[in-house]
Amino acid sequence: MTSSLLTDLYELTMVEAAREAGTASRRCVFEVFTRSLPEGRRYGVLAGTGRVLDAIADFRFDDADLRYLRGTGALKEETLEHLREYRFEGDVHGYAEGELFFPTSPVLRIEGTFENAVLLETVVLSILNHDSGVASVGSRMTTAARGRPCIEMGGRRVHEDAAIAAARAAYLVGFASTSNLAAGAHYRIPVAGTSAHAFTLLFDTEEDAFRAQLTSQGKGTTVLVDTYDVETAVRTAVEIAGPELGAVRLDSGDLEAQAGDLRELLDSLGATSTRITATGDLDEYRVEELADAPLDGYGIGTRLVTGGGHPAPGFVYKLVEREGSDGQMHPVGKQSENKATLGAGKAAYRLLVGGKARAELVLPGEAEVAEFEQELTASLMSGTSSPDWAQTSLRPLQVPLLLGGEPVDDLRAPERLLAGRERHAASLAELGISADEGPDGPAAIPTVTDGPEAARILG
Amino acid sequence: MTSSLLTDLYELTMVEAAREAGTASRRCVFEVFTRSLPEGRRYGVLAGTGRVLDAIADFRFDDADLRYLRGTGALKEETLEHLREYRFEGDVHGYAEGELFFPTSPVLRIEGTFENAVLLETVVLSILNHDSGVASVGSRMTTAARGRPCIEMGGRRVHEDAAIAAARAAYLVGFASTSNLAAGAHYRIPVAGTSAHAFTLLFDTEEDAFRAQLTSQGKGTTVLVDTYDVETAVRTAVEIAGPELGAVRLDSGDLEAQAGDLRELLDSLGATSTRITATGDLDEYRVEELADAPLDGYGIGTRLVTGGGHPAPGFVYKLVEREGSDGQMHPVGKQSENKATLGAGKAAYRLLVGGKARAELVLPGEAEVAEFEQELTASLMSGTSSPDWAQTSLRPLQVPLLLGGEPVDDLRAPERLLAGRERHAASLAELGISADEGPDGPAAIPTVTDGPEAARILG
Repeated sequence: MTSSLLTDLYELTMVEAAREAGTASRRCVFEVFTRSLPEGRRYGVLAGTGRVLDAIADFRFDDADLRYLRGTGALKEETLEHLREYRFEGDVHGYAEGELFFPTSPVLRIEGTFENAVLLETVVLSILNHDSGVASVGSRMTTAARGRPCIEMGGRRVHEDAAIAAARAAYLVGFASTSNLAAGAHYRIPVAGTSAHAFTLLFDTEEDAFRAQLTSQGKGTTVLVDTYDVETAVRTAVEIAGPELGAVRLDSGDLEAQAGDLRELLDSLGATSTRITATGDLDEYRVEELADAPLDGYGIGTRLVTGGGHPAPGFVYKLVEREGSDGQMHPVGKQSENKATLGAGKAAYRLLVGGKARAELVLPGEAEVAEFEQELTASLMSGTSSPDWAQTSLRPLQVPLLLGGEPVDDLRAPERLLAGRERHAASLAELGISADEGPDGPAAIPTVTDGPEAARILG
Repeated sequence: MTSSLLTDLYELTMVEAAREAGTASRRCVFEVFTRSLPEGRRYGVLAGTGRVLDAIADFRFDDADLRYLRGTGALKEETLEHLREYRFEGDVHGYAEGELFFPTSPVLRIEGTFENAVLLETVVLSILNHDSGVASVGSRMTTAARGRPCIEMGGRRVHEDAAIAAARAAYLVGFASTSNLAAGAHYRIPVAGTSAHAFTLLFDTEEDAFRAQLTSQGKGTTVLVDTYDVETAVRTAVEIAGPELGAVRLDSGDLEAQAGDLRELLDSLGATSTRITATGDLDEYRVEELADAPLDGYGIGTRLVTGGGHPAPGFVYKLVEREGSDGQMHPVGKQSENKATLGAGKAAYRLLVGGKARAELVLPGEAEVAEFEQELTASLMSGTSSPDWAQTSLRPLQVPLLLGGEPVDDLRAPERLLAGRERHAASLAELGISADEGPDGPAAIPTVTDGPEAARILG
């Protein structure tokens, strides 16, 4: 399976027209970024970079692809023959997977000829928009869960392949496990599961169902206790399993009130180590409300995998710089764009003071860092206050991913995912957000583009 | 590729426990339905049935699947060997793809042994929830467009494989074409495309870009006119192409105002047959607002493919009837469920008067239809008014899809999709909703479960 048809038709017709006009081989810089965060979001989490690298590696036009394209009549034979030779040969730099992003953060930069780089637009955006949408809300959920393990169990609410990527994005931001077997198989994510109402209903009595489950799956299993009457169910389960009963799951009703009653009941029956897992239309707000309830974990589905009301961060893939007929590189942009998104490849750093993030620096080009540092120093010197300079550092956010079309590292998918999980945890710690602040707020740090602006924040 | 791992772990552990308890072969009836429509939605559109049939056909556990499952340690060797033989052998009846649904409509009924039928839950729900979410909002968009052609172009905002299914669902509900090449290749959906800002920006001047596009792609192409100044762009394009210029695309700004100006300008330049296509964050509400603007088509992306704020219709897969230890079938349901979803496989009909839909009949079992008709007749006779009885009819909504695990028809994917497109158009016409009523409203018809209730509606 190639990935080349996961693409909008116009990418190919633009390549054809540019080739015929002699501009297809002009050097270009494309950047992926979003203009803003959704209302109430303090940050976004970049996810999907690992999958983007896989999609680029598979971006070839095979016989079946070309046969289909020929049949559309939209492209000339010469173009089709040229596409047969397509390989991505450019450079890709980007934020590490799991890294946080803010408005205008250049999360991916693609450099190559126009025809080589423009073709990747659709599939790159599909992957980054989807995966980052899930990761961005998932990070809020694990924060609200305050260390209580979260199970991803939303696969049934989304496209069956998106479900796999969603489980991956959830694991990236700290989910403990997934119910999705394909995600377990592809990415070695731990899988977990409980039992459904259908299982209880299959048996003549609830007691028969619990006995069957506990006999087969062992006492450490999780039984679902809200099919009929919760108290009766818990007494029945403990009677059969004894105090070694692993966990009970609540899927409906007033979870706060029930959790307290349930804990008391379990304790009174001697099942003091039996855990209580809550499920049922949970999101970061509900998890936050449940912080004081005696719960031991959450199963989270729909709101996670559908991006919590913001399914895509609005990533765009924009041409920001290209070679002109004079052979020189020129920044370019739509007339209506504002300065922050107009032209030129950008470098990005997180400005840290004492290990805490204070600003997202987005500078027009690597060469500008020295200038930024001079401006910043000058502004701080002239100001009335200044931070402990020795505590200030710039953490580079962009890393090379592909150079000349070749991967910079050869991490396999599960290892990449673990590295991203660590990156997310470390970058989130730099923000210093406490779960007690609640899920919503303005962007946690400002995006700044020059030294004086940074000095105002630090001063 | 099998589809068997697109499944939650608990489906397999439940099968294992049921097998060990001797209940795995009890006959079961599962139904897929949703309890309610999202706020403001008059109806939902069922989509994905064709893909469900493909997924069931591929639901096998191959060596790689079993190797992974063995590695999880979650299942016993005997269970794994048993799964190797898994084939779905039951019956599936359901609403035709493209059919409308309402609260509690039994859109799919799966009958088989517990172990045979329960395993399909996750993948069936993934497909129907995703595809129906897109189709349900897409139908509102094509209605609001009042016959102006709509292009699906949202692939970059969703998971790359979900993008293909979304294009399919959009075509089902009357979209004219898609930008997504993979959807074109898999389902023979017409593909369409224009040009991007990056193409214009690649050239030294906009005139160079237009000349390149028109020379390569012909005068019938669609040029993007809002990279710099719209009026200048249109004059340039018409100067190069003459009155045969196919279309211009507007992607930003005040579309209503611009469309009027643009039409006047094109007409004044003699380009009276050049079409105007609008794109840019459109949804059914925006399209409705643009009804009086001189536009000739819409390109619709994000809001379509993400389900317009309601990404999944909330379909559930519930055990409603099963064999007990007495060998008889018994209706079953959670204690907390209301009557409408409690127990027993259901038959469904659309009640039509003079070809117009008046109610969704959901009756507990085929045998109840005669009783319904008696009740209805008796109630109408005793009432003060009655409809023209000769004009009243019951259209059966459920059709056999798989019998004994075998497909009832052998339609290929593109033919199935065309049949669904016709079904959608015909069922929507039965509702008699005018675009002038606007997108939102209560459920277009009530769901009724007995004759007296139906008589009250007709009386």
